[in-house]
Amino acid sequence: MTDVADRVETGSNADSIDVSALGELLMGRWAAARRHSRELVKRPEFQREPGLPMPEHRKRVFHQLELLVENKAVHRAFPKRLDGEEDHGGNIASFEEFLIGDPSLQIKAGVQWGLFGAAIMHLGTERHHDAFLPGAMSLATPGAFAMTETGHGSDVASIATTATYDPEADEFVIDTPFRAAWKDYIGNAAIDAKAAVVFAQLIVAGVNHGVHALYVPLRDGAEFLPGIGGEDDGLKGGLNGIDNGRLHFSGVRVPRTNLLNRYGDVDENGVYSSPIASPGRRFFTMIGTLVQGRVSLDGSATVASKMALQIAVTYANQRRQFSDTSEGEEVTLLDYGRHQRRLLPRIATTYAMSFAHEELLAKFHDVFSGAHDTDADRQELETFAASLKPFSTWTALDILQETREAMGGNGFLAENRVAQLRADLDIYVTFEGDNNVLLQLVAKRLLSDYARRFAKPDAAAISKLVAAQVGEVAINRSGLRAFGQRIGDLGSTARSIGRLRSADAQRALLTDRVETMVGEIAGRMRGVAKLSPAKAAALFNANQNELIEAAYAHAELLEWEAFTAGLAKIADPQTKKVVTWLRDLFGLGLIEKHAAWYLIHGRVSGPRMQAVTDYIDDRLLPRLRPRAQELVDAFAFEPEHLRAPVASGAERERQEEARAWFAAQKAAGTAPVMEKSQKKK
Amino acid sequence: MTDVADRVETGSNADSIDVSALGELLMGRWAAARRHSRELVKRPEFQREPGLPMPEHRKRVFHQLELLVENKAVHRAFPKRLDGEEDHGGNIASFEEFLIGDPSLQIKAGVQWGLFGAAIMHLGTERHHDAFLPGAMSLATPGAFAMTETGHGSDVASIATTATYDPEADEFVIDTPFRAAWKDYIGNAAIDAKAAVVFAQLIVAGVNHGVHALYVPLRDGAEFLPGIGGEDDGLKGGLNGIDNGRLHFSGVRVPRTNLLNRYGDVDENGVYSSPIASPGRRFFTMIGTLVQGRVSLDGSATVASKMALQIAVTYANQRRQFSDTSEGEEVTLLDYGRHQRRLLPRIATTYAMSFAHEELLAKFHDVFSGAHDTDADRQELETFAASLKPFSTWTALDILQETREAMGGNGFLAENRVAQLRADLDIYVTFEGDNNVLLQLVAKRLLSDYARRFAKPDAAAISKLVAAQVGEVAINRSGLRAFGQRIGDLGSTARSIGRLRSADAQRALLTDRVETMVGEIAGRMRGVAKLSPAKAAALFNANQNELIEAAYAHAELLEWEAFTAGLAKIADPQTKKVVTWLRDLFGLGLIEKHAAWYLIHGRVSGPRMQAVTDYIDDRLLPRLRPRAQELVDAFAFEPEHLRAPVASGAERERQEEARAWFAAQKAAGTAPVMEKSQKKK
Repeated sequence: MTDVADRVETGSNADSIDVSALGELLMGRWAAARRHSRELVKRPEFQREPGLPMPEHRKRVFHQLELLVENKAVHRAFPKRLDGEEDHGGNIASFEEFLIGDPSLQIKAGVQWGLFGAAIMHLGTERHHDAFLPGAMSLATPGAFAMTETGHGSDVASIATTATYDPEADEFVIDTPFRAAWKDYIGNAAIDAKAAVVFAQLIVAGVNHGVHALYVPLRDGAEFLPGIGGEDDGLKGGLNGIDNGRLHFSGVRVPRTNLLNRYGDVDENGVYSSPIASPGRRFFTMIGTLVQGRVSLDGSATVASKMALQIAVTYANQRRQFSDTSEGEEVTLLDYGRHQRRLLPRIATTYAMSFAHEELLAKFHDVFSGAHDTDADRQELETFAASLKPFSTWTALDILQETREAMGGNGFLAENRVAQLRADLDIYVTFEGDNNVLLQLVAKRLLSDYARRFAKPDAAAISKLVAAQVGEVAINRSGLRAFGQRIGDLGSTARSIGRLRSADAQRALLTDRVETMVGEIAGRMRGVAKLSPAKAAALFNANQNELIEAAYAHAELLEWEAFTAGLAKIADPQTKKVVTWLRDLFGLGLIEKHAAWYLIHGRVSGPRMQAVTDYIDDRLLPRLRPRAQELVDAFAFEPEHLRAPVASGAERERQEEARAWFAAQKAAGTAPVMEKSQKKK
Repeated sequence: MTDVADRVETGSNADSIDVSALGELLMGRWAAARRHSRELVKRPEFQREPGLPMPEHRKRVFHQLELLVENKAVHRAFPKRLDGEEDHGGNIASFEEFLIGDPSLQIKAGVQWGLFGAAIMHLGTERHHDAFLPGAMSLATPGAFAMTETGHGSDVASIATTATYDPEADEFVIDTPFRAAWKDYIGNAAIDAKAAVVFAQLIVAGVNHGVHALYVPLRDGAEFLPGIGGEDDGLKGGLNGIDNGRLHFSGVRVPRTNLLNRYGDVDENGVYSSPIASPGRRFFTMIGTLVQGRVSLDGSATVASKMALQIAVTYANQRRQFSDTSEGEEVTLLDYGRHQRRLLPRIATTYAMSFAHEELLAKFHDVFSGAHDTDADRQELETFAASLKPFSTWTALDILQETREAMGGNGFLAENRVAQLRADLDIYVTFEGDNNVLLQLVAKRLLSDYARRFAKPDAAAISKLVAAQVGEVAINRSGLRAFGQRIGDLGSTARSIGRLRSADAQRALLTDRVETMVGEIAGRMRGVAKLSPAKAAALFNANQNELIEAAYAHAELLEWEAFTAGLAKIADPQTKKVVTWLRDLFGLGLIEKHAAWYLIHGRVSGPRMQAVTDYIDDRLLPRLRPRAQELVDAFAFEPEHLRAPVASGAERERQEEARAWFAAQKAAGTAPVMEKSQKKK
């Protein structure tokens, strides 16, 4: 890459970073678990066969699940007394890497062990563990997680399936009373599931105790048990190795003891009891035990983004297109300014996602291992997951699409992976909680935190506080005022970008935006408690879009903070320097993305905002460009993981063959004369 | 929709628009041709079968092409003396609607008649028409358009396949001298094509006359002819009904007369001649005859966007999720502020695309019918197509994705169309000219127009002019200065948005941005002619990203102008009022999108920019929301076109069934008491 290094201000091969140490850092605390999965999925039997029709794809993936059991790849989270390891972080980490083989394999494994098995573990008690977990773990009982209904997607509290206690028979009777109450999009439901954890409104003696989960046998062999029926959801936009389907229940009876009773039980006298008095809190506690789905999607989206970038950057460093001078040497794609703008900021975002996910996973592990498991910890974990999952899953789709386009027709071929990965990951943005719904949960948390900061605030007080916040609090505290004021200080890019380059300034700007947005919304919603329900709802709805944007701003801040914290773990000075540029590209990229907000709110002047763009274009991208290959090589995927001919080195060989051919032709004197040059003669 | 109308400031059913007349306007000048296709694709045999494996999908689509011939659906563009109609606009219009059946059917038809057939027609002369067009038209000769090579995608001038004239045999010898020169991604090449139009460097007596096209037989039955070989491109991210493949040629001989010789010929004495002296201009003229591909993709992207929005808006008007008040009535999706922000601006953009495409198609028809066919007309057509195609194909992907997400899991099911449409349309953004490459062509045209406006400008002059332009010219001419200055005039939204609502102000702001961006780039590139080639290339490259952004700004302006011109054709006052709001949503949406630019350049003050956002949220979206269904119903797709269960009315039935069930339960007194309310008692 000497040709590249010559063109840029800084950077030569002497400036190489420590790819191996950086790769180790990115692998994180559960590197061993990740490596175990990465070794497994090198084997062809764990890999997707691109053209397989849906029925064969489903069969292949089911068989892959059997192979996962054989290879002891899926029991890390389960109790030690049942031959598990009670290693919650390692379990999720290893699971995330299954995506390299085939996202269908990953998500089908998630259905079996992360949803069906985990629901038995977290919502059931010892008797359920003993009775049902061995079958779930060994795949002797393929299972479904029957929560979502046709009529209720992300609004789980409103599902309409009922489980009514029949005291005479000491049984629960499960019913889906109308079509909208059918369970829908349920993995394993169309074909494989022999049992399901079914979520239903629990009705005991005429009282609805809210959503609870029951263990329900579904099929005997290939046939549904009496009272149960279903449909195949058929072909989907991706993940076609999974047999999603619908389920309906008519008077289906299960023993009372099939109620997964950790958070709510009915005793032999037909009396309901729960360790959590509030039905609302009980519901959120039960749902909260299933947060691992969101955690693992965040990590999976990061894995997919890394793969796509390692493929696309490798290609962009080999592929040449169009000549930039009359000498006719064609230019490597990544030397184009536009191509750098397309790929390098996405590498930066992926690093942020990698560091942020590592923090999320540690938090998850702490809660589920019991190391730090207070109510506050659980709430924090849920908010963290609900923040990061929308950010990373949307970002992954963006990265998969941009890398697809950056490879042109090659990117569209299934053999080069990214088009199929994109199709499979599409659903990640709306399942395990629709991203827009999750961000509203985050926003509500931000609003209540905001209110809590001020003891017993009334409407007027909040309003005042918001005004103060916008005008002074955030600004003074974080030293932001300086940016907005020095509109006059134009000059060289280096001088004008000034303090904005510092981590403190980036943090201050990103933090200020979140706090100000939340404060502004709180201000507009003051007095909401005094309104009629309809008017209150209308007021909330009028702010819904901005609420979601505020929550997303919060997610961006979390990603930035994690990236910045990650820098401290890099020992090698050169590596640290380069990855700090990458962090700056991420941070300043966010500020550039939200330039209008900073300008409207007077936080950054127009000339200084222009300097941010210039600094990205004229400094950061040229500095990072020669290190791009190393930065993606640190993702450490091997050829058996990427399996993309476009990034195999074949392109470089083709270029060299072509160049050699033209050189030989020239040497032999057989090259035709161009009509144009002939005329000049 | 009374529930909706009650909530918004304006709009009730009395405010309905004239859907039928609006629909007719959107169908445009070639409505009859469109209707012919829309009737055809109602027939199941023209429709996609979602789960078909690739080999069967390919066979089905080939058979559909035979049916198109039988139904006289594909000969509109061809010469009357060969039983065509010489109706170029109608041909493209009818072609665009094929997408409703299956985009694979559309693009495979495009390969056969729009590329293979059209190349014979436009690049060949009468003898080629007589010899080759009948077979192409009747599908007796399935054909390929062998232009793109593995080593050269959008850089057609650099392809490496050669056609060398052999005077002794009076033949051309075709060679792909190395792997990178293989033709790649060629539709029909893997299986069906019996012949191809092959693009190659034409070498006559040791002189390379640049890229020319030759008619080359490929296969006898299923077997390649001697010297020809190939590979199947295999599975792709979409469009799997088309057999894309690779082709290579080793010493393949065709008669001299197989050279498609309209723009360059070799006579029986082996002497090359061309009606166009300049090799560069000759190349662009030849390529220019093939502009219809880009034109038709612009229209196809518009058709797909309309389908997706009619599906998603219909669903969003029926689907209810979450309760907004304690009374428990769930809210229609489209009543959510966020959902309105997601869907309504995309309806506006689709209207712009529809009107803009109609103008592009008229321009295309004028040029190819000979009505207005000067060099300037052709250049204008090419720039127009190169502007609109990137805008509409990227927008279509955005719309297909957002509608997919807006329908949650339902959007991911193949039966609901948008996920598969998205997969198929993915490649539209990089084929027929990569969008980023096309925008660079537009940018170069904008730059040269800019330079031409000032006679023989030298570096200093350009620089001065740019400064003047930025500071005064554009601003004074379009009356923009007023916006930037009145920073103090806060107040109500209505007052603050003020003149920005007017069409003139929107036009001035959008125009100013294009002109200023181009002027700034021209200023930075002053003196480029005096630099070394390498330094000049580096300077150009440093501006590449902004050049592309300027070209995209130009495309946005063209879309806005077409939308605005379209308004004049609406007679009904109420319809005109509503569609004018929609145009404002599009125009102000563009200004909001580029808010940072307007703020940095002092064109709009911060408070006024905030007022734009408030005006969109508080006025335009609530006004348009009750008209949303009518606005998408005007796209006039029938159930056989949409074929999406999610938009069939089934959702409304399910909701009604559920409500009736709960009402009956309540009436019978069998509804369970909620635990929460029980405790209160």
